[in-house]
Amino acid sequence: SLKGTKWGLGGTCVNVGCVPKKLMHQAALLGTALRDARKYGWQIPESQTAMAEAVQNHMKSLNWGHRVQLQDKKVKYLNMKGSLVDEHTVRAVDAKGKEMKMSARNIVFAAGGRPKYPTHVPGAEEFGITSDDLLFSFTVCVCKDVALECAGFLAGIGLDTTVMVRRIALRGFDQQMSGLVTVYMEAHGIKFSWKCTPKRVKKLPSGLLQVTWMDLNTTEEHQDTFNSVLWAVGRAPETKTLNLEKIIVAADEATSVPNIFAIGDIAEGRPELTPTAIKAGRLLARRLVGRSTELMNYENVATTVFTPLEYGCVGLSEEEAERRHGKDQIEVYHAFYKPLEFTVAERDATQCYIKVVCLQEGEQRVLGLHFTGPNAGEVTQGFSLGFQCGLTYEHLRNTVRTHPTCAEELVKLNITKRSG
Amino acid sequence: SLKGTKWGLGGTCVNVGCVPKKLMHQAALLGTALRDARKYGWQIPESQTAMAEAVQNHMKSLNWGHRVQLQDKKVKYLNMKGSLVDEHTVRAVDAKGKEMKMSARNIVFAAGGRPKYPTHVPGAEEFGITSDDLLFSFTVCVCKDVALECAGFLAGIGLDTTVMVRRIALRGFDQQMSGLVTVYMEAHGIKFSWKCTPKRVKKLPSGLLQVTWMDLNTTEEHQDTFNSVLWAVGRAPETKTLNLEKIIVAADEATSVPNIFAIGDIAEGRPELTPTAIKAGRLLARRLVGRSTELMNYENVATTVFTPLEYGCVGLSEEEAERRHGKDQIEVYHAFYKPLEFTVAERDATQCYIKVVCLQEGEQRVLGLHFTGPNAGEVTQGFSLGFQCGLTYEHLRNTVRTHPTCAEELVKLNITKRSG
Repeated sequence: SLKGTKWGLGGTCVNVGCVPKKLMHQAALLGTALRDARKYGWQIPESQTAMAEAVQNHMKSLNWGHRVQLQDKKVKYLNMKGSLVDEHTVRAVDAKGKEMKMSARNIVFAAGGRPKYPTHVPGAEEFGITSDDLLFSFTVCVCKDVALECAGFLAGIGLDTTVMVRRIALRGFDQQMSGLVTVYMEAHGIKFSWKCTPKRVKKLPSGLLQVTWMDLNTTEEHQDTFNSVLWAVGRAPETKTLNLEKIIVAADEATSVPNIFAIGDIAEGRPELTPTAIKAGRLLARRLVGRSTELMNYENVATTVFTPLEYGCVGLSEEEAERRHGKDQIEVYHAFYKPLEFTVAERDATQCYIKVVCLQEGEQRVLGLHFTGPNAGEVTQGFSLGFQCGLTYEHLRNTVRTHPTCAEELVKLNITKRSG
Repeated sequence: SLKGTKWGLGGTCVNVGCVPKKLMHQAALLGTALRDARKYGWQIPESQTAMAEAVQNHMKSLNWGHRVQLQDKKVKYLNMKGSLVDEHTVRAVDAKGKEMKMSARNIVFAAGGRPKYPTHVPGAEEFGITSDDLLFSFTVCVCKDVALECAGFLAGIGLDTTVMVRRIALRGFDQQMSGLVTVYMEAHGIKFSWKCTPKRVKKLPSGLLQVTWMDLNTTEEHQDTFNSVLWAVGRAPETKTLNLEKIIVAADEATSVPNIFAIGDIAEGRPELTPTAIKAGRLLARRLVGRSTELMNYENVATTVFTPLEYGCVGLSEEEAERRHGKDQIEVYHAFYKPLEFTVAERDATQCYIKVVCLQEGEQRVLGLHFTGPNAGEVTQGFSLGFQCGLTYEHLRNTVRTHPTCAEELVKLNITKRSG
């Protein structure tokens, strides 16, 4: 990264993405569990402080595991920086400057992306860090899903955290659900500065960072000081160093050059998710060797935001369903619920909510399914399977509940938004 | 109960079943979370001891909630013990002995069941308790699913626990999965006495209970002392006090008497699960008032055993699939996996396992799905939905994973048992 953070084999997911994020999230959840445990009768003295460390050891073991797997599959691994020379040639340079050229029939780019900096903000690069640095070396604020996730676990391990949001939180996600996630975070001590944009960052003699921002409603400037500033304004592929112009990728992962392909975050307009990249890569490999003609289906991929109140979803947001089918043509079933585990722990469940967006006509085909609550990823994965086999509201209603779970709330749904 | 334990409205589930059980299980899980938290870097002094109490308050609030709901729906609630006089008449007696008779067009029995005692074991009734007493007043041990669940959370809150098993653990469940659950429990300090049958219980002058049992392999007798003995040998409906002979219930909840119906645990050969009883009752109510002709489908109900290593399943066990379709006609996909949360916590994942039993022919329709691991109930509920819409292995394989979760392991499956 710009800050000099370096990591091993396995890409964003293993080193600065899903894996360290989920483990940091788990560390924060365990902090909540400590408070819960007291309510359940466990005798634990107050006065804990927290710091998570063992996460990195696990990441290193994954780096190693990937290396072993590549060897097993007889894939040659070169720890070098590549760039395209021509459609069949790649130039590679190692850390010592040693250079080599390689030629190949097909070339697949899967270089992922790097966090973006707001280059128009003076001091941003010099004094700010990104989630790549945070997740790899843990050292805190501006917004996308990773911003909320980072803010969540930083607050969860006891740090004073402020999130600055320019427009909306969780862009691309259902905005009612996004609202529940951020209201929960605010209720749990994370500060939000809404409709604000950072102007500059300055290092004070005390070592603290002074951030100046503008309130977009009043256009007034405000200042405050922070220990750290974390930029989470999205990721972009490093197409320049790869000697690639903007890559235009079609449905079959092909680019404008017949033998050059691109999978994962490097391709624009795709869900930036590890499992979609893995699956797309696997299907591409099969097509390239003539074993299959199956194309990747990027629709109805379940995803989970690991915020303090987790949010899992699959299919369309309510907004997108309205846009595609018309507000009159959709039926939204919804309910607030209280996880049983929250009762004894006396935890507030005001934002625990489920929503299923269906077509109104006929069998009421399910278009989107949304869940906030504990273990959202575990809950939604199974339901996403239904999207592969024509899930309707009737199927949902006919499924017998597993009691007591949170997931059962989804098959209990019988109140429509329309009914008021 | 025989021990004089009394409770309020809402039946087995609310008072001595699902709800207190899950909450006690949660209390035990929080004990594990405390140990995990240290590995994640939380500084917690050793020397906790545990006792869960607040569970009862929650149950009382549920009793009250049920009462309010009955009032809302204008259902007359009489806290009296009923028995059948004739096909249209019920006799009811309250706690003070006051008696009344009522007549009705239709009568539905939903009296549930009470834990059985091994009446052939001298001292069993006098000195032993059942899960009804344990879950309501918390005061260990002989085997069904509730036995393992109780043993799990008793050990989880720090009590020395021994489980005595006559034949097999988790009867009716997939026996490979059952083995994983009990091996995990043994590895976590719960003692098992396999193939043993209790002979008598005696109270010693010290107040301890001396249990004598027979090893069924050697027919030798053994003795040991315990603080408490918990009988978990199944539940039976109290048909005698209801003045009912053995109730024979058909697919539509009807009995041999046209206007008398039975739902829930009182009916034999049904899954003894709250949600099935609720659903069957709701459908019966609709049929009785002529609003619907829909019958309850008792197949493919997902269920979860809340043992220390949770076990969730839906559909057929491998044994049952073999029995119905023949060993050659089924294909079993399986995998061991390691939950990401276990890595940093250095928890052993040897028994975390998934298994999907399919028909071998054609599209490989899924017959059964089995999962051991954290949050098994949350994981399996969504997958159970698939059984409503013709789930095949192909659907499973086409579902994109949600990473990092445990549920994703189910859609990653690609190794068959047959392949070795």
